Amino acid sequence: MKFEVTILGSSSATPIFNRNPTAQVLNINEHLYLVDCGEGTQVQMLKYEIKSSKIDHIFISHLHGDHYLGLIGLISSMHLNGRTKPLKLFGPAPLLEIINIQFKYSDTTLHYDLQFIPTNPDEPAVIYENQDVIVETIPLDHRIATTGFLFRQKKRLRKIIKEKAEALNIPIEHYPLLKKGAPFTAADGKVYKNTDLTVDSDRPKCYVFCSDTIYNERYFEQIANADLLYHEATFLHNLLDRANKTHHTTAWQAGQVALQTQAKSLLIGHFSARYKSLNELLDEARGVFQNTELAIEGNTYTIGDDMV
Amino acid sequence: MKFEVTILGSSSATPIFNRNPTAQVLNINEHLYLVDCGEGTQVQMLKYEIKSSKIDHIFISHLHGDHYLGLIGLISSMHLNGRTKPLKLFGPAPLLEIINIQFKYSDTTLHYDLQFIPTNPDEPAVIYENQDVIVETIPLDHRIATTGFLFRQKKRLRKIIKEKAEALNIPIEHYPLLKKGAPFTAADGKVYKNTDLTVDSDRPKCYVFCSDTIYNERYFEQIANADLLYHEATFLHNLLDRANKTHHTTAWQAGQVALQTQAKSLLIGHFSARYKSLNELLDEARGVFQNTELAIEGNTYTIGDDMV
Repeated sequence: MKFEVTILGSSSATPIFNRNPTAQVLNINEHLYLVDCGEGTQVQMLKYEIKSSKIDHIFISHLHGDHYLGLIGLISSMHLNGRTKPLKLFGPAPLLEIINIQFKYSDTTLHYDLQFIPTNPDEPAVIYENQDVIVETIPLDHRIATTGFLFRQKKRLRKIIKEKAEALNIPIEHYPLLKKGAPFTAADGKVYKNTDLTVDSDRPKCYVFCSDTIYNERYFEQIANADLLYHEATFLHNLLDRANKTHHTTAWQAGQVALQTQAKSLLIGHFSARYKSLNELLDEARGVFQNTELAIEGNTYTIGDDMV
Repeated sequence: MKFEVTILGSSSATPIFNRNPTAQVLNINEHLYLVDCGEGTQVQMLKYEIKSSKIDHIFISHLHGDHYLGLIGLISSMHLNGRTKPLKLFGPAPLLEIINIQFKYSDTTLHYDLQFIPTNPDEPAVIYENQDVIVETIPLDHRIATTGFLFRQKKRLRKIIKEKAEALNIPIEHYPLLKKGAPFTAADGKVYKNTDLTVDSDRPKCYVFCSDTIYNERYFEQIANADLLYHEATFLHNLLDRANKTHHTTAWQAGQVALQTQAKSLLIGHFSARYKSLNELLDEARGVFQNTELAIEGNTYTIGDDMV
């Protein structure tokens, strides 16, 4: 099952040419989940050939402009492009007011059902679940109410060893039982153990999105053992005072988060516009946690054991 | 005196890669005036090296997203980049509510004075004037309240013929009087006519911005004799029904507007995403009004007699 993330933007608040504000798209089993939607996200989607028609879920972490100003444009364009299927939108409660006032004055009535689910910045909560994934909010510590998001794959059923099943002429109707772990009794009465006919499905993977936040251990337990941890790393550690003042994290601290929460891989982003080159940020984080990569626009990262 | 317009975007509502929504910057005597501010305008400004610090006036035609969704990002970035001087913003009255609600929830207090001046979509009005220019609103006919904007240069004082003034040793203190048309009396009592010492300043030019609107002659008188008329031309004329339904103009009609209002030059824009090539739109408009150009992103058009 596909489980990967494509970065559409990983810049922080002030703009810089060719670095866009936060937005990323998760592909989970060929369904797309958009996480944050900074200004210009719909253009980034066109650039990187991400089809908005495949997005049914959008998650907004908080109401600083660099994380949501592309949302109105995107959901308007979905409307103008003829969307009729529902769209689920998760985010801070006032987001609905911000959307409604703009649609009111532009005299827009969407042709599809925009289902808004407010997030609670104070307590972790499961906010969404389907056959592929469970999504939890992560209460972060920023200047305004902010949540991260944790995407945990669901454990899949066991996988049938096709050659064995066919050799035994196991009826296809029996396959769902096999996948659930049942044994198989052949016509001659012989019983085959399930473990001879199936293999376990892959270990479910976990993706964690933490942006924006000051370094604060209160969310560490919840995000432990991420297969891929995306964490903001706005500044180098020599600007720790500025990071603290603005409730952001340094690259060194992001490495610490990954180390202490036993992440398998770390992806850093939300880079300050002051850094023309990002190598120092990468080196600093790697000094603490080797398995780190930069979140680079247009790059896709597979979420799994051997990701980086 | 410089009087020119740089196109930052001339696409219509649905996005297309490499064509941005409406935004343009007027340079009038080295002061920048931003007209409309679609999503991504601040990135376009970076791309084309338009300094936001030189913008003190922003004009928003109406509250469809493709004309204002870049505004919050831009005025936030001005704030983050340390702006302290005031910014005048002209637009439909509800725009202030849209801005305030977003700043409320992002907990933003601007470090500079954002002076909002609401426009009236029902009557033409002078909304701004300084030593260089007078700006009027143009009531247009769109689905929601919309105004165009007319920028009329002010007549400058007469220009002194420097060689003559120096040959006669005219004191510099007398120059302001000369510029205003006064004669000069030399020490020997000889009187020099002003017209011998000065020449008339250039004819003031006029730029008209009409986007978005259905073809409607009610604004023709006001925009007559524009040196450069920017007019939307969303569709080819074979989609006249669609143009009428959505309250837009066809390229053929845009040519008609220029012809009937005796514009000197026509710049067409607000192109529908359906047109991959814009040549047909240009050809159609030129079939009616030869002196037409496409509004192409990144291009700068001088507003004057020999513009196109």
